[in-house]
Amino acid sequence: MHALVAVVMGSKSDWPTMEAAAEIMDKLQVPYHVEVVSAHRTPDKLMDFAATAADKGFQVIIGGAGGAAHLPGMLASKTRLPVLGVPVQSKALNGMDSLLSIVQMPKGIAVGTLAIGTAGAFNAGLLACQILANNDAALAERLEAFRAEQTQSVLENPDPRDA
Amino acid sequence: MHALVAVVMGSKSDWPTMEAAAEIMDKLQVPYHVEVVSAHRTPDKLMDFAATAADKGFQVIIGGAGGAAHLPGMLASKTRLPVLGVPVQSKALNGMDSLLSIVQMPKGIAVGTLAIGTAGAFNAGLLACQILANNDAALAERLEAFRAEQTQSVLENPDPRDA
Amino acid sequence: MHALVAVVMGSKSDWPTMEAAAEIMDKLQVPYHVEVVSAHRTPDKLMDFAATAADKGFQVIIGGAGGAAHLPGMLASKTRLPVLGVPVQSKALNGMDSLLSIVQMPKGIAVGTLAIGTAGAFNAGLLACQILANNDAALAERLEAFRAEQTQSVLENPDPRDA
Amino acid sequence: MHALVAVVMGSKSDWPTMEAAAEIMDKLQVPYHVEVVSAHRTPDKLMDFAATAADKGFQVIIGGAGGAAHLPGMLASKTRLPVLGVPVQSKALNGMDSLLSIVQMPKGIAVGTLAIGTAGAFNAGLLACQILANNDAALAERLEAFRAEQTQSVLENPDPRDA
Amino acid sequence: MHALVAVVMGSKSDWPTMEAAAEIMDKLQVPYHVEVVSAHRTPDKLMDFAATAADKGFQVIIGGAGGAAHLPGMLASKTRLPVLGVPVQSKALNGMDSLLSIVQMPKGIAVGTLAIGTAGAFNAGLLACQILANNDAALAERLEAFRAEQTQSVLENPDPRDA
Amino acid sequence: MHALVAVVMGSKSDWPTMEAAAEIMDKLQVPYHVEVVSAHRTPDKLMDFAATAADKGFQVIIGGAGGAAHLPGMLASKTRLPVLGVPVQSKALNGMDSLLSIVQMPKGIAVGTLAIGTAGAFNAGLLACQILANNDAALAERLEAFRAEQTQSVLENPDPRDA
Amino acid sequence: MHALVAVVMGSKSDWPTMEAAAEIMDKLQVPYHVEVVSAHRTPDKLMDFAATAADKGFQVIIGGAGGAAHLPGMLASKTRLPVLGVPVQSKALNGMDSLLSIVQMPKGIAVGTLAIGTAGAFNAGLLACQILANNDAALAERLEAFRAEQTQSVLENPDPRDA
Amino acid sequence: MHALVAVVMGSKSDWPTMEAAAEIMDKLQVPYHVEVVSAHRTPDKLMDFAATAADKGFQVIIGGAGGAAHLPGMLASKTRLPVLGVPVQSKALNGMDSLLSIVQMPKGIAVGTLAIGTAGAFNAGLLACQILANNDAALAERLEAFRAEQTQSVLENPDPRDA
Repeated sequence: MHALVAVVMGSKSDWPTMEAAAEIMDKLQVPYHVEVVSAHRTPDKLMDFAATAADKGFQVIIGGAGGAAHLPGMLASKTRLPVLGVPVQSKALNGMDSLLSIVQMPKGIAVGTLAIGTAGAFNAGLLACQILANNDAALAERLEAFRAEQTQSVLENPDPRDA
Repeated sequence: MHALVAVVMGSKSDWPTMEAAAEIMDKLQVPYHVEVVSAHRTPDKLMDFAATAADKGFQVIIGGAGGAAHLPGMLASKTRLPVLGVPVQSKALNGMDSLLSIVQMPKGIAVGTLAIGTAGAFNAGLLACQILANNDAALAERLEAFRAEQTQSVLENPDPRDA
Repeated sequence: MHALVAVVMGSKSDWPTMEAAAEIMDKLQVPYHVEVVSAHRTPDKLMDFAATAADKGFQVIIGGAGGAAHLPGMLASKTRLPVLGVPVQSKALNGMDSLLSIVQMPKGIAVGTLAIGTAGAFNAGLLACQILANNDAALAERLEAFRAEQTQSVLENPDPRDA
Repeated sequence: MHALVAVVMGSKSDWPTMEAAAEIMDKLQVPYHVEVVSAHRTPDKLMDFAATAADKGFQVIIGGAGGAAHLPGMLASKTRLPVLGVPVQSKALNGMDSLLSIVQMPKGIAVGTLAIGTAGAFNAGLLACQILANNDAALAERLEAFRAEQTQSVLENPDPRDA
Repeated sequence: MHALVAVVMGSKSDWPTMEAAAEIMDKLQVPYHVEVVSAHRTPDKLMDFAATAADKGFQVIIGGAGGAAHLPGMLASKTRLPVLGVPVQSKALNGMDSLLSIVQMPKGIAVGTLAIGTAGAFNAGLLACQILANNDAALAERLEAFRAEQTQSVLENPDPRDA
Repeated sequence: MHALVAVVMGSKSDWPTMEAAAEIMDKLQVPYHVEVVSAHRTPDKLMDFAATAADKGFQVIIGGAGGAAHLPGMLASKTRLPVLGVPVQSKALNGMDSLLSIVQMPKGIAVGTLAIGTAGAFNAGLLACQILANNDAALAERLEAFRAEQTQSVLENPDPRDA
Repeated sequence: MHALVAVVMGSKSDWPTMEAAAEIMDKLQVPYHVEVVSAHRTPDKLMDFAATAADKGFQVIIGGAGGAAHLPGMLASKTRLPVLGVPVQSKALNGMDSLLSIVQMPKGIAVGTLAIGTAGAFNAGLLACQILANNDAALAERLEAFRAEQTQSVLENPDPRDA
Repeated sequence: MHALVAVVMGSKSDWPTMEAAAEIMDKLQVPYHVEVVSAHRTPDKLMDFAATAADKGFQVIIGGAGGAAHLPGMLASKTRLPVLGVPVQSKALNGMDSLLSIVQMPKGIAVGTLAIGTAGAFNAGLLACQILANNDAALAERLEAFRAEQTQSVLENPDPRDA
């Protein structure tokens, strides 16, 4: 099945974070593509990837990067597809640099930014599914089921002292 | 024409920020609805608004709030629609509180967060249009035209010393 | 004996922090109830919990959460009971996000916020006891005794070089 | 009528912030006392004030201070009464120093901290009323009425574009 | 005379900051070129500008930008010329976002970053001259003269109370 | 020999940091006294300690504390002796809270603040010696010798690659 | 009368901050000297100033600077006299840069750091007087009188609502 | 071959960070010199080192330091050579103090600042090579080859899931 979501990241070292995006898309049966695209080391590939993404059938791009995380913003500069950004936790500044570099985009080019780290990557995958579900009733149902299940698992274990 | 995007905000005082979202949707001819919904002062309305938003035909919800900005996250807890969050610039902490309160969502409930202030509100409206354009070829064209125009206006005025 | 204080938290993983609140209430013989209530995954339960808390005989609610910690503020939006908030230390930002999300509440809905982490949880339990002691002379005495004992243990060991 | 809440502040210059605490207590008909008590310039008065506050009939103390805001924490060290702290917005650091100095109390001495600035002062007054309402049914009713009115005023003006 | 330094900036609104770079290069008689190049609105121009800069005879590129300031880093990704970055002071976060977005570059692509705002722009121009002076004895002399004059003007006015 | 410097700290757990102050005073043969004095748990002892310190022959007080570190500021409120403050590294916020709580004192009560952690404790001891050396020529000589030795040890090992 | 305290600052523009140090020394009749010494523009003068300060009879040096505020630390590197540092409020970062540059000195060279801005400058002057008062009984008396007066002025105006 | 780049650092403990600068210069065959020069413990050596660096044939100076990192700025105050600064990651504040102390230089004395830690050290070495390559065609070629190789290594391993 054709991939609808592209998950790109600046470095292989971002994968332990970004695989959480894949995890939820696997669960919700949304086909995706993963690839390393570095804004700084492979800028031409980045430009080409973003410029051709819509024609290749992608509907959402997720970009994960750390530090001076330019990947999501530069992807957004070259495509009209919605771009979601995941700030990867950096060494010295714990991802505060990644977060500000991704979220503080200027007027006219948008990146929908998620939380720093794994939770943010998971939620980027989830938000991509929510976007796609607007036009896919079956996916919308799977999404509602995932949400109900998530709620249920909290409701069923209300006592924090239980192992 | 039926509103596809709901723009809600915690207080009337957020409108000078949030109207930038309306501005770009007006330009791209995307119908939207605006309403004040306070997470803290009208929690029941918030819950109801989010719970019924999909059935009312909304496809994207934009929530803007400042300080302990709970509105976007609580909207997201009650709908499977994509929720975009706009951190409104706060008085003491300049919106750093708003940003962290909106973006640092836990795994399982996502908010796509934009920049602090007016640029973020504009980009929330723009990102909503980008999401809708995936299934609306005419909107996709208007979006591309807006982007081209935006690029052109920079290209045509390359000298920063010109008035 | 009927629980006077409700200690709720967003996730079981908050318990190692929040049990410090239970520890001091055990010591001061104040009956309490503990429960996992997630603002984002179980919003309806949260709303219901807060709305019925006063009728159930609770006099103080303690809410602990990390990251975009919406739990204490949303509890406060649905009850006139005093709500105390404990920012749980988060992974990337060390609880600064939790702190700002909890403490920066807008005018009209208050959360009395304690320190990040275990000390804050302990102090939330202690402050709950202080509130109850206003109308419980025996508890006030136990509280004074605890304070005296705490002072005494510092006074008796004035040399930091002793093991 | 005897004052139940003491509102103390480090300097007269804190009054424009702290009067918001008085405003809500006036509205809810809770008698209060206001006084300047400086932790650094009048430490003996501070110690005495806190040590005698319970005997004087106060049930809650609100302390507001900016910068290295030691007032609320030192009050709490000398009384078993619940102490609420208001971080006054400071000049250079916008109240981030005030907030951390007040909220990051060690295990064993608690200060329930509110937001930086006027909203925090208002909410300190409100939270004091919430504490007192546990044992004052009439006040509880006035509190509920205030909350309902606050909700209503948002519900009645849902359009942010209205003046 | 052929321009040796290119001064590019993301927007015309950056000129009041960036003209300080021009000021010192005017003084030191180093020919430069100024142009608006937006990383997000004109990414193709940015890529082309950087890729051809060395062949056009530039020896240093200065990039100034604010917020998610991707311009200097993306320039550096496409040229082996030294790139200097100037964080323009942003509205909400005072340039802390600009600074982190520019300075926190990953291993392999470098941006020499200066201070936030006008002082940083001036110093970027100055540092460009210092780089060029390594191979231009006359410029080195003018640079030494500028430095001596700067020192002298402080030495000659040692009393801060003089007007 | 009579102790000239008092080293007080909020808790025994501060000793691993504060012993660095003792280390340099041992080396420079300045007699000192160490004691645990908690601002929050033993406020009366703190007040008394500071009030009588000058009469007891102390000439400098060093106070170390973490979090809402009120100890140095409250010592300064009760003595005309110079007070030096050491921000102990805290758990969640790494000592930024301790630093701001100690350094941001209001006009009229001063605390000379050193760096966060062990280096700061060492330098507090050193600065105390520098203060005393103004009136103790032999100590001034030992101080100069320590400084020369410190310089020498760097000069003698200029190659960072040597083990 | 011979100056005992040297007040140096990086630029004339620091005087509106630093004159508060002069104000309190005037009041306490401590003779002082003021001079502009720039770490970056007049490094030789700085080195010479510090190296000869003790021989010239100074007993304390106060250094005020903003941004990458190297002045106090470099003074301390060249003198055994106690050096006090005043972080001048900077434009973009409000003095947080000045504070960290001054206070975070490495082990072995100490700077006693005061608060950001005017209050810090005042307190640097005051702390210099406290240091000198250890060996000047008359000054100690004037200091005690100043402190008593300061306390009295707060005690006499306890009502914050009075003009 | 004569060293063209001087790599100095405040302490031997900075070498594990700073050796990354040596690594890239080794690879690009640029001769360099490494030495420990402490701004605070060996200020005279620092002044002399910088003052004579140009005459000794150095063309670029790299300075690495942590905390109140005065080394790069003081080097820049004494030489017209371009100075690059590397903020070494500090213990308590993770290098935010080092970064601000290095980058926030005043108008007139410039330091080109790189990222915190090892990546910054590597990039300082790389930027030094980029500066030298302007007048060394063979180095320029090696630089282009390094960049191509770096790009290639990312392009050849596009799948983040590969080991």
